[in-house]
Amino acid sequence: METTGLVSFGRYTCSHLYFLLLIVLPLGQHTVEGVWPLPQIFTSSIERYPLNPQAFYFGYGRQSAAQFGCSVLDAAFIRYYSLIFPDYTGNYPHEDSSEKCKYQHIYLRHSTTGKSHIGKKQSVGFDVLSPSLLFPDNLSVSAGKASLNAETVWGAVRGLETFSQLVYDLLNTHSHHIIKGILLDTSRHFIPVHAILKTLDAMAYSKFNVFHWHIVDDPSFPYQSQTFPDLSRKGAFHPMTHIYTQSDVRRVISHARLRGIRVLPEFDSPGHTKSWGKGQSDLLTPCYSGSTPSGAFGPVNPALPSTYQFMATLLKEVSSVFPDSYIHLGGDEVNFSCWKSNPDVRAFMQKMGFGVDFTKLEAFYMENIVNITTFLNKTAIVWQDVFDYHELIPKDTVLHIWKGSPANYRKELSRMTKAGMRVLLAAPWYINHISYGQDWRNYYTVQPLNFSGTAEQKKLVIGGEVCMWGEYVDATNLTPRLWPRASAAAERLWSDEKQTSSVDKAFPRLQDFRCKLVRRGIRAEPLYVGHCKHEYQGV
Amino acid sequence: METTGLVSFGRYTCSHLYFLLLIVLPLGQHTVEGVWPLPQIFTSSIERYPLNPQAFYFGYGRQSAAQFGCSVLDAAFIRYYSLIFPDYTGNYPHEDSSEKCKYQHIYLRHSTTGKSHIGKKQSVGFDVLSPSLLFPDNLSVSAGKASLNAETVWGAVRGLETFSQLVYDLLNTHSHHIIKGILLDTSRHFIPVHAILKTLDAMAYSKFNVFHWHIVDDPSFPYQSQTFPDLSRKGAFHPMTHIYTQSDVRRVISHARLRGIRVLPEFDSPGHTKSWGKGQSDLLTPCYSGSTPSGAFGPVNPALPSTYQFMATLLKEVSSVFPDSYIHLGGDEVNFSCWKSNPDVRAFMQKMGFGVDFTKLEAFYMENIVNITTFLNKTAIVWQDVFDYHELIPKDTVLHIWKGSPANYRKELSRMTKAGMRVLLAAPWYINHISYGQDWRNYYTVQPLNFSGTAEQKKLVIGGEVCMWGEYVDATNLTPRLWPRASAAAERLWSDEKQTSSVDKAFPRLQDFRCKLVRRGIRAEPLYVGHCKHEYQGV
Repeated sequence: METTGLVSFGRYTCSHLYFLLLIVLPLGQHTVEGVWPLPQIFTSSIERYPLNPQAFYFGYGRQSAAQFGCSVLDAAFIRYYSLIFPDYTGNYPHEDSSEKCKYQHIYLRHSTTGKSHIGKKQSVGFDVLSPSLLFPDNLSVSAGKASLNAETVWGAVRGLETFSQLVYDLLNTHSHHIIKGILLDTSRHFIPVHAILKTLDAMAYSKFNVFHWHIVDDPSFPYQSQTFPDLSRKGAFHPMTHIYTQSDVRRVISHARLRGIRVLPEFDSPGHTKSWGKGQSDLLTPCYSGSTPSGAFGPVNPALPSTYQFMATLLKEVSSVFPDSYIHLGGDEVNFSCWKSNPDVRAFMQKMGFGVDFTKLEAFYMENIVNITTFLNKTAIVWQDVFDYHELIPKDTVLHIWKGSPANYRKELSRMTKAGMRVLLAAPWYINHISYGQDWRNYYTVQPLNFSGTAEQKKLVIGGEVCMWGEYVDATNLTPRLWPRASAAAERLWSDEKQTSSVDKAFPRLQDFRCKLVRRGIRAEPLYVGHCKHEYQGV
Repeated sequence: METTGLVSFGRYTCSHLYFLLLIVLPLGQHTVEGVWPLPQIFTSSIERYPLNPQAFYFGYGRQSAAQFGCSVLDAAFIRYYSLIFPDYTGNYPHEDSSEKCKYQHIYLRHSTTGKSHIGKKQSVGFDVLSPSLLFPDNLSVSAGKASLNAETVWGAVRGLETFSQLVYDLLNTHSHHIIKGILLDTSRHFIPVHAILKTLDAMAYSKFNVFHWHIVDDPSFPYQSQTFPDLSRKGAFHPMTHIYTQSDVRRVISHARLRGIRVLPEFDSPGHTKSWGKGQSDLLTPCYSGSTPSGAFGPVNPALPSTYQFMATLLKEVSSVFPDSYIHLGGDEVNFSCWKSNPDVRAFMQKMGFGVDFTKLEAFYMENIVNITTFLNKTAIVWQDVFDYHELIPKDTVLHIWKGSPANYRKELSRMTKAGMRVLLAAPWYINHISYGQDWRNYYTVQPLNFSGTAEQKKLVIGGEVCMWGEYVDATNLTPRLWPRASAAAERLWSDEKQTSSVDKAFPRLQDFRCKLVRRGIRAEPLYVGHCKHEYQGV
């Protein structure tokens, strides 16, 4: 029984020197089998160790701070056991039944709780996104045993993924990028929960760590709010079948958390809110045709106090439902024509001394919304448009760059980091834009730090995000459009840029990784002519 | 219990006037619910009839030539019953148990056998592709009963599809186009049989009638030959897991046949044959570098008598395995450089008096191969390249146009039909070429007969084909790339061009049809922002 050409299993008696994992890298010979995304440092050996599913299991090291009962790792052990032995039909062996056969030892330096935060110093819990904490310091495989040292459970989860990809190398990873995210848009099409969970599985396989949930937008409002149930009752595509209940959201967050993935919710306003208006009267601006309302509605009405009361209540709920310390507030693509047409809005402009500069009105609105999140002890992420309007937003707000060509976004990276703002780069990874051929190469060759700026400025680039906007995507085609194209971006965000500068060298490795995804039941599409040993078996 | 907004079910007692099918087209009001592809003639009513799954079944009319025991229709009845009542968990009612409840009567004018042929006059059997025989002459639904008149079982199968799409119209279809095909390439990637069967299901839903199986090519030879087992043993991606056995092929042909779909096999030569050479020595031309063989191989070697013996034996097998009266022989993209480099080939050229004109050598080869199929009582289809070389091929050979822009293929349509040749148009429907947005509009707006030529010339356009080449496609992404984009071409090939000239009018109908496909378990991708009542539930 073989899982890949690299692994051979057999029956061995339990012994102290029982071998754990193959290491196969013929000296001086390139092999395409490996780990995706590439670890930053690795050494390899020509040795090969057989692996026996009946004796193999994961255990905690005696000195590990984490021990049996750590739910994240206990669950991850079972999950990765199945991924490593997909053909084995027996049960996961119990630790008790084979005391002498601990082959994978996990050592955690600190006992940690499961709460996750982005890059904020906190006295309790830990920072899941700090590179020094996130990644396993050491996964070593050698004759007789394998051990994984990690500072946190999340680092251990990443190490288990690496291990499961049949590591033939020692690794020690420190990523440059804190956020390695994927945005899913569940408003333009409703994505059923099972498809979101499947996406989270695949994200973990590529070591993505942030699920940016663009949950609502113009076309539909599928989030079922506790405080404002009419929002989804009237704003979703269907009030019963096309919504995310509180239980659905908890399930997504829990599934993500077990895989070391944070859930970053986005409630985009004041634009992109058409669906909100269906269930919340007086929220959107009535547009005027001359002196009479046209019947159409524009962005959120920034001239009414009730707007801010509503937003504060909604964001308070969102803050408690989504445990992440960050909230995405949107702020992109606000069309001013409706605001301009509305006499009440114009009167408010006069009163506030904004003249006819509607960017000031937009700034006023966003400042208020960002301040609400600050009050809720959350940090805001906003689309880059907000910076363009020069709002007075807190310095810890993260700017999300989505516009333009490389020349264009490099200029923005330079400008925004120069102003001391942290930025998150999405522009080069609008993966919903498909084209014929190997467009993954474009995602792979992005250089996020290749912009004019100081070392300090470069540090303000906290990561990147792959965006799958939903105009043409739902559960029917989401997976093959995402994978393995998003995996190309994953390596750019996880691995050392110098070691991964050749897209041609990456090609056979990514082909191999794509077959691993297929073997794990992810409908990842092919990169070019060829085959996988195990083709996709679903229908 | 409702399947769509148009259908309501309930419990009714059996009575002679039991209603069969709803007809709902509010007068003067446009409805997007309907039939795809559009029937050529229809009238509608405002009436609506309830449909009861416990009483409804399909039966044969008393005067019908076909009766119980006609395997194609017996199977189709059960299949379409499930498609019409997807939520009904009971069994298909037996005719005997509800004698008074025959609601769908099928009348066949002639008793027919199941053998299928394209456009060839035969004294036995029937011509499945002749428009006058293929389509139901009449599907009428009115208070109390529905009846379907068809000349052949295949016409009845098409009528059942129309019926299952909740017909609200009378229809009488005579398509301009005889061949409405889809090409699948199973060489660049192996497509497992289950994915081919699923594609056949979806083809039937869009009324495609030819599955062009581009079964082998350069990258792999998955067809397991009885006479030359080494071809797949050495030429497939894997000799056991990546092949089509004789039993697989029979299963595909049988599944297709029950759905009124012919299977047209393609064994493309003399180019596109790299994989053939692995299991058949001396078949391919050894390329030379100067005066010594380079180790590389080129197209099939046309200078050796053994080549023609091999091809005759292989094509004899293919002719008996694939019952269709047509065989596709390829003949495209032959690169002459290897032939030119080979001294034996050059000597053969001299001997035959071809000088240095290698198109004459290519012509010589193709003439021989086409003559083999003629001897086997089959008609050949070849890619357009063969015509360009002015081979002396039989006049009944069909030319398959695959090259170029509309200006280009229109010129070819004109030129080839002027020469009296029948043509099949594929050029505008290379559906493997994806792009961002609604590219289905391009497939919809093709005008296959818009070329310079007489009415007689236009009649020589025997149909069109959607081609899904396999560079970037396998079982992971085949379905969402094919559907509903191929359905756009289906309407062009099935429906009256004048009635389907507006792509904007087609859009909501195609959206609706796409949701029907999803409801039937076909992973058809969305056309734009929106939703289906029943989203895709697979993973």
